[in-house]
Amino acid sequence: MSGEEKIIVVALGGNALQKKGEASSQAQQKVADSTVQQLLPLIQAGHRVAIVHGNGPQVGNIILHEEAINTPDVPSLPLDDCGAMSQGLIGFWLQQAFHDAFTQVGMRDKFATSMVTQTIVDAADPAFANPTKPIGPFYSEEEAKAVTAERGYTVKEDAGRGWRRVVPSPKPQEIVEAPVIKALVDAGVLVISTGGGGVPVLKAEDGTLSGVEAVIDKDFGAALLADKLGADTLLILTSVDAAKVNFNQPNEQALGEISAEELQKYIDDNQFAPGSMLPKTQAALKFLAGGTGRTAIITSLEKTAEAINGAAGTRVKS
Amino acid sequence: MSGEEKIIVVALGGNALQKKGEASSQAQQKVADSTVQQLLPLIQAGHRVAIVHGNGPQVGNIILHEEAINTPDVPSLPLDDCGAMSQGLIGFWLQQAFHDAFTQVGMRDKFATSMVTQTIVDAADPAFANPTKPIGPFYSEEEAKAVTAERGYTVKEDAGRGWRRVVPSPKPQEIVEAPVIKALVDAGVLVISTGGGGVPVLKAEDGTLSGVEAVIDKDFGAALLADKLGADTLLILTSVDAAKVNFNQPNEQALGEISAEELQKYIDDNQFAPGSMLPKTQAALKFLAGGTGRTAIITSLEKTAEAINGAAGTRVKS
Repeated sequence: MSGEEKIIVVALGGNALQKKGEASSQAQQKVADSTVQQLLPLIQAGHRVAIVHGNGPQVGNIILHEEAINTPDVPSLPLDDCGAMSQGLIGFWLQQAFHDAFTQVGMRDKFATSMVTQTIVDAADPAFANPTKPIGPFYSEEEAKAVTAERGYTVKEDAGRGWRRVVPSPKPQEIVEAPVIKALVDAGVLVISTGGGGVPVLKAEDGTLSGVEAVIDKDFGAALLADKLGADTLLILTSVDAAKVNFNQPNEQALGEISAEELQKYIDDNQFAPGSMLPKTQAALKFLAGGTGRTAIITSLEKTAEAINGAAGTRVKS
Repeated sequence: MSGEEKIIVVALGGNALQKKGEASSQAQQKVADSTVQQLLPLIQAGHRVAIVHGNGPQVGNIILHEEAINTPDVPSLPLDDCGAMSQGLIGFWLQQAFHDAFTQVGMRDKFATSMVTQTIVDAADPAFANPTKPIGPFYSEEEAKAVTAERGYTVKEDAGRGWRRVVPSPKPQEIVEAPVIKALVDAGVLVISTGGGGVPVLKAEDGTLSGVEAVIDKDFGAALLADKLGADTLLILTSVDAAKVNFNQPNEQALGEISAEELQKYIDDNQFAPGSMLPKTQAALKFLAGGTGRTAIITSLEKTAEAINGAAGTRVKS
């Protein structure tokens, strides 16, 4: 380690919490424990760390459960509520894992906390006119027509597997609780927040908020939080060690240290897969554009420590 | 108002979030908004306020949904996870309601935040040997036997309505995140925490934590939090304006200002209903026993402002 204490925002992907086919609470908590072990060296090195986590598989299962009963006494809750529930659930697992890790290495004055976080999106975001994110159960065509009529859902046919609700994925504009998160991170608390990108809310002209059924990309949420915290580093963790260009071709190349301009050129050259590496590179650039002296890193959980030291991962400098 | 700024922990009962028979998200958020309007004068008067909320109806519905599907891919989550989900859900509703209320009265530098909270319980608590709290769906006798065998549930027959799982209700021993909650409350942030009394966890000998399927009385949780925050006032809000003695008798009397000793005598005289007013009076005394100059108040949401000013409610002094 360089000895320099940084503020690092870590965006945890789905694989940091759930292994394929292992959805039980026990199994997910085990993965959370092992994820936290990989992140512990950052905190031991003195960095102040804020965690943003995805919630895809977890909110997916919450929705399936919610949709299984929908009566006046036991109503299905809307997607924004399900997102808030997933923040509570995943926050519990992660903060307990951090508590235990801190305890085991004798850092008994170190605290981890999870905060329910609302993220403001823009009602004029083009995403609202073009919902793309499939969520919830599969429907027959008949059922799909019924939920469209009864509940106003937009549904789309999903590659022969049936019909599914689709919701918009607008860009995050503002993190309502960012000043509180910043105060805690500055005070050295490990803060888990902005889960699933934050619960999407709309802001009325009078400044009041209301939940909206949408999905926010957690990497964009993490980039916005990192900007608001004045972070030095945005660390986007995914299933691969680095972003790659010329993917699956003889001249495939993993990107190491690279300038924001170079990365933008690769984006313009359609080098990255939409819905996968593309939004991560875009989130990285978004963070870098907000200030100088910043670094965005895209790497795997396993390469975290090396990447922070400049020895692994795609490291983009502003 | 006296002009003296206090730290007040408010314990919100179930009726502060849900009206009977109105379980939709919209209806519950409307109740949350109106609850927050009643509490707003405390914050406008300069008091630093921490909120502890119950979660009975909400976690009840989460459990019914969770139990509706239980497959390897979409497993039912255990009660501690459901409690954490309810903290996310209710926290979202309340912190949005506070945000909006602050915005509407121009308190734009005031923040509300909800924190996932773990409460340590004692594995040796006698409650674990005698589970009493019914939760989840009703079962036939056959189904009850099956869940006992398959999932280790303790079930009890519920007054002719069928069988139901019962879980222990141990006393809270320690609130893991209390120091972080205290730092924020001291800084003037409105903190919503310890929802449903906190997610119950057991502490192993090495100091690590693990969730446990139990239910914590939220008034006892609030009393413990108030103690750890060094609060001046514990405000227990319920459906009645004051605790009463000689209930439903000609000499029925609402208690006003009263000493801890007097209240203890009424408890010893079995004046309060178990599972209703009794635990509230016990939680009040527990808080008062921890320090001097403290006040515990039992009243209704509507009488909040009057009670703080000494003009309503049962006000117990240490």
